[in-house]
Amino acid sequence: MALRDERVTLAHGGGGKAMRDLIDEVFTSVFQPPGMEDQARLMADAVQEPGARLAFTTDSFVVTPLEFPGGDIGKIAVCGTVNDLVVGGAVPLWLSAAFIIEEGCEVALLRRIVASMAREAALAGVRIVTGDTKVVGRGAADGLFVTTAGIGVIQPGREMAAALIRPGDVAIVNGMLGDHGAAILAARGDLALSTDLHSDCASLGHLMQAVLAAAPGVRAARDATRGGLASALNEMAEAAGVGVVIEEVALPMRTEVKGVCEILGLDPLYLANEGTLVLFVPEDQAAAALAAMRSVPEGAGAVVIGRAVAAHPGQVRMVTLFGGSRIVDMLVGEQLPRIC
Amino acid sequence: MALRDERVTLAHGGGGKAMRDLIDEVFTSVFQPPGMEDQARLMADAVQEPGARLAFTTDSFVVTPLEFPGGDIGKIAVCGTVNDLVVGGAVPLWLSAAFIIEEGCEVALLRRIVASMAREAALAGVRIVTGDTKVVGRGAADGLFVTTAGIGVIQPGREMAAALIRPGDVAIVNGMLGDHGAAILAARGDLALSTDLHSDCASLGHLMQAVLAAAPGVRAARDATRGGLASALNEMAEAAGVGVVIEEVALPMRTEVKGVCEILGLDPLYLANEGTLVLFVPEDQAAAALAAMRSVPEGAGAVVIGRAVAAHPGQVRMVTLFGGSRIVDMLVGEQLPRIC
Repeated sequence: MALRDERVTLAHGGGGKAMRDLIDEVFTSVFQPPGMEDQARLMADAVQEPGARLAFTTDSFVVTPLEFPGGDIGKIAVCGTVNDLVVGGAVPLWLSAAFIIEEGCEVALLRRIVASMAREAALAGVRIVTGDTKVVGRGAADGLFVTTAGIGVIQPGREMAAALIRPGDVAIVNGMLGDHGAAILAARGDLALSTDLHSDCASLGHLMQAVLAAAPGVRAARDATRGGLASALNEMAEAAGVGVVIEEVALPMRTEVKGVCEILGLDPLYLANEGTLVLFVPEDQAAAALAAMRSVPEGAGAVVIGRAVAAHPGQVRMVTLFGGSRIVDMLVGEQLPRIC
Repeated sequence: MALRDERVTLAHGGGGKAMRDLIDEVFTSVFQPPGMEDQARLMADAVQEPGARLAFTTDSFVVTPLEFPGGDIGKIAVCGTVNDLVVGGAVPLWLSAAFIIEEGCEVALLRRIVASMAREAALAGVRIVTGDTKVVGRGAADGLFVTTAGIGVIQPGREMAAALIRPGDVAIVNGMLGDHGAAILAARGDLALSTDLHSDCASLGHLMQAVLAAAPGVRAARDATRGGLASALNEMAEAAGVGVVIEEVALPMRTEVKGVCEILGLDPLYLANEGTLVLFVPEDQAAAALAAMRSVPEGAGAVVIGRAVAAHPGQVRMVTLFGGSRIVDMLVGEQLPRIC
């Protein structure tokens, strides 16, 4: 049956025919989940290998605007959950997707976002296998919220955790910092900023597989999303009980991102990224890791930004452009609401 | 660090210190997830048994009010996802929980809901192992939305699917119909109804294990949530290509629920349930299934309500109190928004 409505109504959330039409036509026809029971039924050989473990993660996405240069809430929902699996060394396999839709949401917008999710899932090599839709009245949500959960498999013997970072380990990022945060800010329009900035929103599974093949000793990785690079590094330093020193001169950042931050009084170290991770590698595997990252598109801009040290455990310091040193703390308060 | 705020602010979603305090104190201190990496790392012997399969499901919960007689949004989020696993014959193991919180939400309310989730998870024998929090500005969400995803394991050889239902199979429900929908309606207050109704919100894993031990031939089960018993039966009839006949006189329903429906012009067959399932069993196992259900508290009110027939495939018919027969269609349009 063709969905004739142009906008989502409360009936599309009611559990009846209208809901089934919406789900059939907008969601399952695109995602093509493996079954129509109340749950997906799945198995992969890798999961049953002795010593394998499952990785399981979830994120809600409330980004505004829903579409922005370089991505949309659907793409970010796939990438974000894939990357949360990837930074633990897991190979992502399956995603769920739950939609909270505000009454009046355009069906055409939903279709674009669902198509974007399907495209990104195919790129990342994952399947969207189960989902849910709820509809709330006008004013009870802001357009659309998407919550994804993901299952991956961690191969036997793979151990990546922030607590494993040791003094001397080298910190590497895979590319430009702050593009997502700056692109979203510019896209909100109310700042009257005109830029060419695009979100870095990308799935990093292929990148991580390349790194792990070349540098199997990778200690830990984090995607530098909300709270930015600064918060990711602080979490890792604290978990490992090491200090971290980064070099301001080494931080890859576009002139435009720096410009947006200067105008708005933001610190780019706290800007969100959606396709950028930081990883720590033993020094003797750093060159191999760097080369492997540069061999895939998502890592073309990979650079060393600093290292773990025995001094000032739990603290992140930055050697500034002028040769001084300053503490890079966790983000205090809010920088940018609804960035992801 | 003690969380001193009485209400959630945008800073609690920003990725920095305030967010970590909220997560540490309100969520992880109660859920006690197995690790503090970006993803949970899990394994269970049952998953690695040859022939085992994973079940994976998700639901967003937007119920209003957030607390109601017999439950709250947290309890329903745990029960709903557990039951979606259970009706496929899976043993539920792990849940994720993602919270979208409106700025201004009381921290005390969050704590009550988190405690309720932890309590229900313990009862259901599952662990909440990973999660997420997002905060949106006032007016961008309605208090709190919770999205859970769940992983369970389906034992080797277990096959339950609506398509397996055959003419002659007996339809059984585990208890009273419509309590949840009627309790939520009454709790909304604006109807000036004063009732003693409580939601039936409950996890049904123990019930299903009891049934499967006694009646391993169970064909299929569905929890009769949004859209009620009528929608669940219609879905099953259509998937199986069988007709379904139910007896109005056999439907277990409280006088108060009937009363609420009469006053409001609602059909109780479409009222949502959150702890009620319908299952189809081969006739020769129906007595065993019924006895097993009645042996656990969630099934104390179990009764046969009808059966599958070869006639009118895909259609559900009800023999009325007056001996007539009427078609029980899928719900058309909306009955009650935000019932779960």
